[in-house]
Amino acid sequence: MDTYYDTPLTEINSIMEQSWQAFHEYRLLPLSRRAELMRAIAQELEACGDELIHTTMQETNLPEARCRAERGRTIMQLNQYADACGQGVWLEARIDTAIPDKTPPKPDLRKMLVPLGPVVVFGASNFPYAYSTAGGDTACAFAAGCAVVVKAHPAHPKTSGMIAGAIQKAIEKTRMPTGLFAHVYGASVETGKALVMHPHTKAVGFTGSFTGGKQLFDWANQRPEPIPVFAEMGSVNPVFLMPQKLSQSALEMAQQYAASITLGVGQFCTNPGIIIGIESEALQRFTHDLGKAIKAVNPAPMLHGGIAQSYTEGKNKALLQDQVHLVAESDVDAQEGEGQPTIATVAAATFLSNPLLRHEIFGPYSIVVHCKNMAEMQQVAAVMGGQLTATVMATDAEAAAQPVLIETIKNTCGRLVFNGVPTGVEVCASMHHGGPFPATTDSRFTSVGADGIKRFARPLCYQNCPHPLLPAELQNENPLGIWRMVNGELSKEGIK
Amino acid sequence: MDTYYDTPLTEINSIMEQSWQAFHEYRLLPLSRRAELMRAIAQELEACGDELIHTTMQETNLPEARCRAERGRTIMQLNQYADACGQGVWLEARIDTAIPDKTPPKPDLRKMLVPLGPVVVFGASNFPYAYSTAGGDTACAFAAGCAVVVKAHPAHPKTSGMIAGAIQKAIEKTRMPTGLFAHVYGASVETGKALVMHPHTKAVGFTGSFTGGKQLFDWANQRPEPIPVFAEMGSVNPVFLMPQKLSQSALEMAQQYAASITLGVGQFCTNPGIIIGIESEALQRFTHDLGKAIKAVNPAPMLHGGIAQSYTEGKNKALLQDQVHLVAESDVDAQEGEGQPTIATVAAATFLSNPLLRHEIFGPYSIVVHCKNMAEMQQVAAVMGGQLTATVMATDAEAAAQPVLIETIKNTCGRLVFNGVPTGVEVCASMHHGGPFPATTDSRFTSVGADGIKRFARPLCYQNCPHPLLPAELQNENPLGIWRMVNGELSKEGIK
Repeated sequence: MDTYYDTPLTEINSIMEQSWQAFHEYRLLPLSRRAELMRAIAQELEACGDELIHTTMQETNLPEARCRAERGRTIMQLNQYADACGQGVWLEARIDTAIPDKTPPKPDLRKMLVPLGPVVVFGASNFPYAYSTAGGDTACAFAAGCAVVVKAHPAHPKTSGMIAGAIQKAIEKTRMPTGLFAHVYGASVETGKALVMHPHTKAVGFTGSFTGGKQLFDWANQRPEPIPVFAEMGSVNPVFLMPQKLSQSALEMAQQYAASITLGVGQFCTNPGIIIGIESEALQRFTHDLGKAIKAVNPAPMLHGGIAQSYTEGKNKALLQDQVHLVAESDVDAQEGEGQPTIATVAAATFLSNPLLRHEIFGPYSIVVHCKNMAEMQQVAAVMGGQLTATVMATDAEAAAQPVLIETIKNTCGRLVFNGVPTGVEVCASMHHGGPFPATTDSRFTSVGADGIKRFARPLCYQNCPHPLLPAELQNENPLGIWRMVNGELSKEGIK
Repeated sequence: MDTYYDTPLTEINSIMEQSWQAFHEYRLLPLSRRAELMRAIAQELEACGDELIHTTMQETNLPEARCRAERGRTIMQLNQYADACGQGVWLEARIDTAIPDKTPPKPDLRKMLVPLGPVVVFGASNFPYAYSTAGGDTACAFAAGCAVVVKAHPAHPKTSGMIAGAIQKAIEKTRMPTGLFAHVYGASVETGKALVMHPHTKAVGFTGSFTGGKQLFDWANQRPEPIPVFAEMGSVNPVFLMPQKLSQSALEMAQQYAASITLGVGQFCTNPGIIIGIESEALQRFTHDLGKAIKAVNPAPMLHGGIAQSYTEGKNKALLQDQVHLVAESDVDAQEGEGQPTIATVAAATFLSNPLLRHEIFGPYSIVVHCKNMAEMQQVAAVMGGQLTATVMATDAEAAAQPVLIETIKNTCGRLVFNGVPTGVEVCASMHHGGPFPATTDSRFTSVGADGIKRFARPLCYQNCPHPLLPAELQNENPLGIWRMVNGELSKEGIK
C-alpha cells in the first residue's frame, strides 16, 4: 500500500485512552521486563532485513551504507538503554531510614523516579531510524515506564509503518499490554495538536525545526495542565579557529570541515554552520582550501523536496545579504531536490549587525566569519544563541590563554568540542545532546545517552511505606542490586 | 525604618546586569567556595540573634518557638546543601574515555552539570526563613553556581531585609563577587514581571499560591527565550482512611489529624485539606472526634490580613455549597485576622460533582468525604489533581489489598505517606517536595532536599578537552573525590 490516510481526529481520543490504560499496566512491570521489550524491538528491527533498508532509501534518498549504519546505531541504542534501564542509576534511588528517637521522629523515606505517563513522539526526517519511530525518544520513554504514541514523519511514512509493525511484534512477543505503543499518521498540524493537547498525554519528544518544536512547546504550555516538551530544534554549531592552530594546519582543517559540512548533504543538527576566525593569511588559506574542497563535493539529493527547497532559499537569501560573499560552491550544479555545497564569507562587523546570518540553514552550507581581532571574536561568541555544540580549534596554549572566550562559549552550548568536528554524536552516558534555547526547549535534559530516560520520569517519595508494598528498587535487601543513596552514601549494599 | 519603597522598575535592568556579571565570576569558583558562602550565610543568620526572631514574630504572627525552629531548619538546610554541593553527586559527572582505534574513533567525553545563570526567587509568606530570602531556593541556586535575585515578600519586608543583610555580609566575608545576591522590594505585579522577563534571568523559584505561580510560569514561557519556573503552588493533600485501620484507632487518628489540620493555623502547603473515608460507624466516630478536637483549638492570628480574609471567604463559600455540612468549628470565635478551625463533611457523590470542593482552602479547614464503598473511594482518588502529598491510613493487610487505589494515588502525588500526617517535611536526600501540576509547575524536581540543586543546572559535555582546561570535577585524578560514572561504572577512583 502506497498511500497513507491521516488518522481521523476522532480516533485520537480512543488511541490516547488505550495508551493511558496500557501505561497503568506497564508502569508496574519490573525494570527487567522493560529491558526485555526494548531488546525485542531491537531484534525485530534487525528482522526487518533489507526490505526496510530499501524502503528507507527510496523514501529519504539516504544511501544504503548510511541506512545500514543508522539501523545498527538504533539497535545499539535500544540495547544500551535497556542495559541502563536495568542498572537503574537513572532512578536516583534515595533512602533515609527512620530515626524514631529524633524529635520529632524522622520517618522512613525512600524516593525513586516513576514514569510520567503516555509520551507523544514526533520523529526526525533526518534520522528515520535513530530519532524516529523506534529512536531515542521512544527507547527512553519505554525505559522510563511510559506508553508511547508516535506520529509518523510524513517524509518517511512507509519506513515508520514498518518500524511500528516491528514494535507491535515485539510487544506481542513480550506479552506487553495492548495500546502500549500506537502509531498515528497525519501530515496536518491538527493531528499533532490533538495529540499534544490530549489530557492523557504527559510529555512530548520532538526532533526537527524551530518552528515545529516551538509550536508544540507553546501548545503544551497552554494546556490546562502544562506538560514538558523536549524539542531538539537544531543549531548553527559555531566553530572558533584560534590563529596558531590555524596557521599550523589550515589545509588539514579545511578538508576536515569540508567533509563535516557536507556529511549527509549537511542534514545534521550538529552541522557546523558558522566558522569564526581572525583575519590573517592563515584564515585566507583556510577559506580558500575549504572552498576548493567544497567545489569537489557533488550535490546530492536531500531528504525530501521541501528540505531541498528550504535549503536553496535560505542559502540564496544569506548570499544576497549585504557584504556576504560567495567563496565557492560545488563545481557541479544541483538538480531539483539536491543540495548544492556552498561556502560564504562575511566580516564580523556585518555578522554582528545582521541577525539573519545567525539562522540555521539546514544543508551543506557554512559561512566563514572573519574578525579583526580576539575582541571581535569575543563579541561574536557573545551574540550566539543557545547551541547544541560549539567547537574550539586551538593549540593547548591558545585554549589556556582564552579563558573568557571559552567561558562565553561554554555558557551557550551543550557540548564543547576541542579540535574536532561537531558532527558525529557518540551514544554513551557522558554525551549531552541538548543545549540552551533555542537549541532545545529544555536545556536540562539530553536526547542522546541513557540520561535521556530521565526526561520522562519524576520523583515519588514513600514515607513509612509497609515494606512489602515498596517497589523492589527501594526494598531493604536491594534485590535488583542497583546503586542507591542510603543515608547519604551511594551503595549497592542491602540495608540490614 | 518602617516603610519600604518599591524598587523602581528602571533599576531592575542594572540589578540584573550586575547579577549577570557576578554569575560569570561565581560559576568559575570551586565547589568548596560555594559551600563556604552557604555556611557563612548560615552563620550570619544565627548572628542576627533575637532581633530577627522578634521582627519576624511581629510581621508574621508566628510564635517565637516556631520562628526559632524555622531559623534552625534554615541554617541546617544551608549547611546540608553546602555538604551536598561539595560531595558533588548532584553534578551527575559522567566520563567515557577515548577509544582511538574504534571506527570511527570514540572521542574522550566528560559531562557534568553547570549553572543556568541568575535565578529570581519569590519567597513564601508561610516560611519567612526556610522558603524565603535565604531559604531552600536561594541555597540550591548558590550551590548550583548561580547568582540570586530575591523579591522580598511584601508580608515580611523587614525580615527579608535583615536576612538580605546577612547574605550580603556573608558575601563580603567570603570575598564573593558584588552583585551575586540582590534584594528587590516590590508589592506590585510589575516588579515580579520585570524580573521574570529580563533576558539575564535564567530560572525562577517560587512558593505560594496557584494564581501567583501560574502567572510567573506563563510569563516565563512567553519570553523570546523561555526559562524554567519551579513554582510550588500547594495542594489539598488528600488522606484516605481504610475501614479496618479506622475502626481500630478512630479516636487516635482524629486527634492526630486535628493537630495536623490546625498546625501553624493550617498554613502549610502539606496541610490535609480533604479526608476520605467509607461510610461506617467508625467514620462517624472519627468525624465526631475530629470535630470535638477541633472545637478545643482556639483561633489564632494568620500570617497577614489578606490570608485570613481569603481563608474565611474560602471556608464560608465551601460551607455554603449544596449538601456540605458543618461538623464543628472552634468553640472560640475568631477575631479579625484570625483563622477559625473548622471541619465540614460531604457525601462523595456531591464531592465528585462539585469541583469547587477540591480547591485548596489555605488555613485550618478540612472536609471529610464519606464514600458509600471502595469503588466510590476509587472514583474520588481518580478525580484528584496533582498533589504534593497523599496519605493512606491502613493496616498492612488493607494496603496490600488495594493495589489499584494505591496506584491511582501514587500517580497523582509527589509523596505517599502511610499512617502518618502529611505536615512535617523532613529535609534529606530522599525527600520529594513536589508533585504533578497543579501542585507544582515541574513535577520532575523537588524544592526540599539536595536534589533541589539540580533545578538550577544543566549538563555540559566536554569533547577531547585539553586536560588542564577540564574542571577539577572531571579531571583524571578526581582531585575532589566525588562520585562519577566512569566508562559505565560509578566510582570515586581516579582514572589511570
